[in-house]
Parts: sequence; C-alpha cells; structure tokens
Amino acid sequence: MNSPADPLAALPLRDDLRGMSPYGAPQLQVRVALNTNENTHPVPQDVVEAIARRVGEAAGALNRYPDRDFTDLREALAGYLGHGLTAENLWAANGSNEILQQLLQAFGGPGRSVLSFAPTYSMYPLLALGTGTKYIAGVRAEDFSLTAESAARQVREHAPDVVFLCSPNNPTGTALGLDVVEAVYAAGEFHDMVVVVDEAYAEFARAGTPSALTLLPGRARLVVTRTMSKAFALAGARLGYFAADPRLADAMRLVRLPYHLSTVTQATALAALEHHASLLATVADVKRQRDRIVSELSRLGLDPAPSDSNFVFFACGSDAHAMWQGLLDEGVLVRDVGIPGHLRVTAGTEEETTAFLDAVSCYLGRS
Amino acid sequence: MNSPADPLAALPLRDDLRGMSPYGAPQLQVRVALNTNENTHPVPQDVVEAIARRVGEAAGALNRYPDRDFTDLREALAGYLGHGLTAENLWAANGSNEILQQLLQAFGGPGRSVLSFAPTYSMYPLLALGTGTKYIAGVRAEDFSLTAESAARQVREHAPDVVFLCSPNNPTGTALGLDVVEAVYAAGEFHDMVVVVDEAYAEFARAGTPSALTLLPGRARLVVTRTMSKAFALAGARLGYFAADPRLADAMRLVRLPYHLSTVTQATALAALEHHASLLATVADVKRQRDRIVSELSRLGLDPAPSDSNFVFFACGSDAHAMWQGLLDEGVLVRDVGIPGHLRVTAGTEEETTAFLDAVSCYLGRS
Repeated sequence: MNSPADPLAALPLRDDLRGMSPYGAPQLQVRVALNTNENTHPVPQDVVEAIARRVGEAAGALNRYPDRDFTDLREALAGYLGHGLTAENLWAANGSNEILQQLLQAFGGPGRSVLSFAPTYSMYPLLALGTGTKYIAGVRAEDFSLTAESAARQVREHAPDVVFLCSPNNPTGTALGLDVVEAVYAAGEFHDMVVVVDEAYAEFARAGTPSALTLLPGRARLVVTRTMSKAFALAGARLGYFAADPRLADAMRLVRLPYHLSTVTQATALAALEHHASLLATVADVKRQRDRIVSELSRLGLDPAPSDSNFVFFACGSDAHAMWQGLLDEGVLVRDVGIPGHLRVTAGTEEETTAFLDAVSCYLGRS
Repeated sequence: MNSPADPLAALPLRDDLRGMSPYGAPQLQVRVALNTNENTHPVPQDVVEAIARRVGEAAGALNRYPDRDFTDLREALAGYLGHGLTAENLWAANGSNEILQQLLQAFGGPGRSVLSFAPTYSMYPLLALGTGTKYIAGVRAEDFSLTAESAARQVREHAPDVVFLCSPNNPTGTALGLDVVEAVYAAGEFHDMVVVVDEAYAEFARAGTPSALTLLPGRARLVVTRTMSKAFALAGARLGYFAADPRLADAMRLVRLPYHLSTVTQATALAALEHHASLLATVADVKRQRDRIVSELSRLGLDPAPSDSNFVFFACGSDAHAMWQGLLDEGVLVRDVGIPGHLRVTAGTEEETTAFLDAVSCYLGRS
C-alpha cells in the first residue's frame, strides 16, 4: 500500500497510519451473507413498528441536544441484564467498538498497554493503535483454548494496564471459563489492571455457560461489555454497552464526546428493549442452526471449534482462500479471518444454513 | 476536584484525566433554555413525519450493519452544500465533535499539535487532550477579532500540524474574513499543515459573509466542517460533516470506527435533508431575533459583539455570574462561558427572546 500509487501518500497523515488500509469486511451483494456475524433474521414487525413510533415521538424535539446521561436507556439496559444491576452500573455508546475505545481512552493511551489473547477480535489492535495504547498479543494453546494458569502467567509477565478477554471468543467461538476471568483479575490486582470481558455474543452461549456479570460484585476494575448488534438483531442501530462498578461507569464521562448517544439511538434502543422477548426469540433458532453447522461440518470431515456464539470457526484444509472463493461462487459469503486453514461462518436462518452446507458439500465434492 | 473526596480517585485513570470534571453545560429544567445554541424552534411536522417514515422503512433491516460508506447521505449532503461538491468530497460522523476528533486522530496525535485562537470553542482543547495532541492557544485582539496578519504570524511562530478556525466563532459569534483563512493556509504550506474551518453556524451568517467552501478548489489540506445541530434544528440527531479534497475525506476511513454512522442516523439525516427548505425556514426568524438582541442590548447599555451566528456574546458589566444567576431566577438560562464580564445567549423564538430581554431589563433595573 505504501507505494507511490497510494493516493493518501501526499497527505500529512500520522506516521503510524501511513500505508494502512481501512478495517472492514467486503460489503458485497450476495445471495447469502454469513460473513459479519449479524443476526440474519429480519427485525420482527412489532419491533419495527415500536421503533418507528418511538422515533416519531422523539423527532419533534430533535432540535434539542440528547439526554447526555441517557438515564432511561441505562435503566432499561440494567433491567434487561438483571443480576441486581442498576442504571448506575451501566454505560452505553455507538457500538461496542466505541465502548472499548472509551475504556482505552480512560485507562490506556500513550505509555500504557492492553493485552489480549490471539487470535481474537481483530479490532483490538486497531483500537489500541487509534488511542496510542501499546498492544500486546498474548497466546493461546494450539487448539485456541486458554487456561486460567496460562492467562494469569501472561498477565504477570506483561503487567498490562488493560486486558481484553473476548468470551465467547471471536473468531474461534468458544466461551472462556469464569476461572480464567477470576485468575486474570487476581493477577492484575497489584498493578490496578482493568479487565474487560467482551461478551458481544453471550446470548448465544450453550446451556450452563455463566456470564462474567456474575463476577462483578466486589470487583471494581471488572467491566463486562455487551452489544445489541448480535442477539438483538440491531447491528444497524449501533448500540454497545457495559456493566461495571458505578465509579467506572462514571469515569466514562471524562472521555466520551458530549452528547455522544443521539436521541434517535436512545429511542431505537429503548423500543428494542421493550420488545426484547420478540427479538430474542430468534436466538433459539440461530443456536439450532449453529449446532447443525458444527455437527454437519464434522460429518463432512472438517474440524469445527465448539461454539457459544452465532458463528462457527472451522479448519477447512490447506487452502482457506480457495474454499472462501468456492463458496462465494455459489453465492455464499463467509469470512476469511486470516488464520491459515480456517474460515468463519455465521449461523443464519435455516434456509441460509442449508445453502452454506450445500455449498460446502459441493466445494468438497469438486476439490 | 482532585481531593480525597473525588470518587474517581481510586480508579487507575490516565494521569492527564485525574481530577477533571466532564464537559457540559448544566442540563437544567427551565422555562427558557438559551444556553447551548440549539435552534429552539421545534422540528416542523412534515419533517417529523418524514423521519418516522424513513426510520420505519429502515428498521426491518437493522439486523444488518449500516452502509459503512453512507453513500446516499454523502450525496445528499453534497447536493445541499452545492459549490460543485460531490459525494467524494463529503464525510460525516456523530456530531462535529466526532468529525474534529477523527481529524485529530489522522493529522494530530502524540508528538503533534493543534492551534486555535482563544477564546474559541471550548471543546478544542478537550479534543486535543483526548487524542494526545498538544494544544496551542493562539491569541486574538482585545475585541476578540483576528486579522490575517496576526493569524499567519502565529501559525509561522508555532508551526502546528493542524489549525482550527471557528467561523462564526463560538462563543464570540463573529465570522472570520476569508482573507484570514487564506493567510493561515498559505502560512502552513511549507509544513503541510491541515486547516479546519469550523462553520457550525454558517447558515446564520449576515448577508455577504462568504463560506470557506468557496476556497476549497486547489487547497488539498483545507477542511470545512458543518453540522445539522444548529440551522437544521437536529442537535438530538448528532450529525456533523465536512467537505474537503476527496483524498482527505478518504483518509478518515483509517481512523473512524467501523460502521460509526448508524442506519437510523443515516435515515434521519436523509429525511431532514429532503425537507431542508422547511427546516431552514426557521433560520430567517432566528436571525431576526439575533439582530433584535444585538440592538436591544446596545440600547440597554451593554456591549454585544457583531453576530453571524444564532447567539450573541455580550459584555455585561463586572459580575457575569451574578447576572447569569439573576436571569436564571427569572427562568432564563444563558451560558457563562468563563470569560470575565461576558455572557452568551442563544437567539430563540420571538417569545423566548422577549423573555430574555425582559429578564435583562429587570436585572439591570434591580442592580
């Protein structure tokens, strides 16, 4: 990219941005898009109507700035999460990415570091770069698992200011044991380390997988982030949030842009939360399709990782890019996450899942 | 704030945030709120209906991520601005603050600096702090004016990486001559300086005040920012944007968070732009009230600055805070911007403006 042909080369960009390409999956028009872990079920009609109604009611007062502290939304989010949380424990922003950026602005930044365990969510190093935070890539076992002992040892070795634990992990799909979170938190006790558990996909976890929300009491430096982009089928609305000690939530007011959460976003999220039963009804179906992908891919001789999310990460043989292209030729877009020999597919509707599995069979039959 | 009573003192916050208070005007419930330069005219009914309709149409597909490049919105913004601009010249984000933050992330940051001319928009130093950019406060003349010669001299002296020129200036209200913009741009030629003209209030300018948009051709490092929060009466929707050379707009994709502009925000802004004639009809009335405030305050013996915006900055005698409190006691909230002997008032509806002027007369009669 950093060639004379780079059209941005003439700009006085920061040195660390020179030659970079923007983040983002290709936005291709395809029959079956299973590449960005969206909930592929359309938003139910009762929720569509509630959103239009709430936004319509709010629109007459859009000349005024939003409620800067989005109190109603924080209350509704606390009510949804349960676990004895109240509005004071909650914070929200324009997507989980902005949540994580604000956390790094407050607790990371120049001279500080953030550790996560690769392979993991590919935005973490980019958010670190954007906030001037040093990024440390910790390691996982060969099978992408992470034990409490290994995680704690790496925390003690690097003594980062912030740790991001993605659970269920993206792109591998498996949830962390809470023993890992507890061990990481304890290992960071002496240097006041902030531990962020990114539970973007938590609603899809297999039965018996507890949330790190249960660990919040007594842990003032623990943050559990969530999003409405996945289970809530609201990726287009951009609403990420976290639960933590009230002081930690309060600290976000020092770094958030004033009025960062628009009146329209607040109204949309409130409408969705009122109808969460209707939105979350799609989750059971997505989990069925996810389990179907895992068992069918195994049957086809591929090697899928156990999944607590709405996607499946699988070993696909030697040439992941060839398979990605082969599936795209059949109209099915999956994600090449850049890990050799592996692909990631989102669990869609029953019909989309069938299309994906048929395309895999067809590709394997040809190759 | 940095006392033992500071509830955030126990958190591992960055050192430069310790003891700080969050930015923001008090959100008080008062009869007449003229403190945050909103357009106090409610959003017209046809616009309310268009927003509800557009958002309702978009809501069924909110399960998908937004159009990351918001092409329709960029086209509509270019069409509104005119001056031969096209979608490629445009960029948008969640409010002007996010626009300015993204510009500093790309062209400022650690080891770099941004200059503006105080007193000016109070978010500039905070945005510099949040992005690790060194903030340099240039100076204005005693009467808050700024000449081309003085501005260019200060640019040569400090050689900043970025300059913010607020025109019309907040909180003083007066537009800059284009000769100032030209001189600043020329003075930064040799060190590739980015010049940002913040025209948040441009639609309120007095007749014959040209926009810096006219200077864009041939100036690859010039950026003109605008917002829908003021003239468009959409502060609650959070939509800021800029026009610049296409390469500069393109560079924002390196620093923006993926999918930073929600589908709902895009739909709301598109509805408003379709009805811009209806929204901008309030601007003429606001300008009449603004001119009325200037002439009435002069008549009352106070000293208002010439205003090209929807607010008036005025010298009010020795104790600005006493007058601020006196007006609040009458149910009128204005802004104490922290400049001794001065206050700032937003031009509201005719009724609100009358309430403000009556409260001033009443206060001056008592004191």
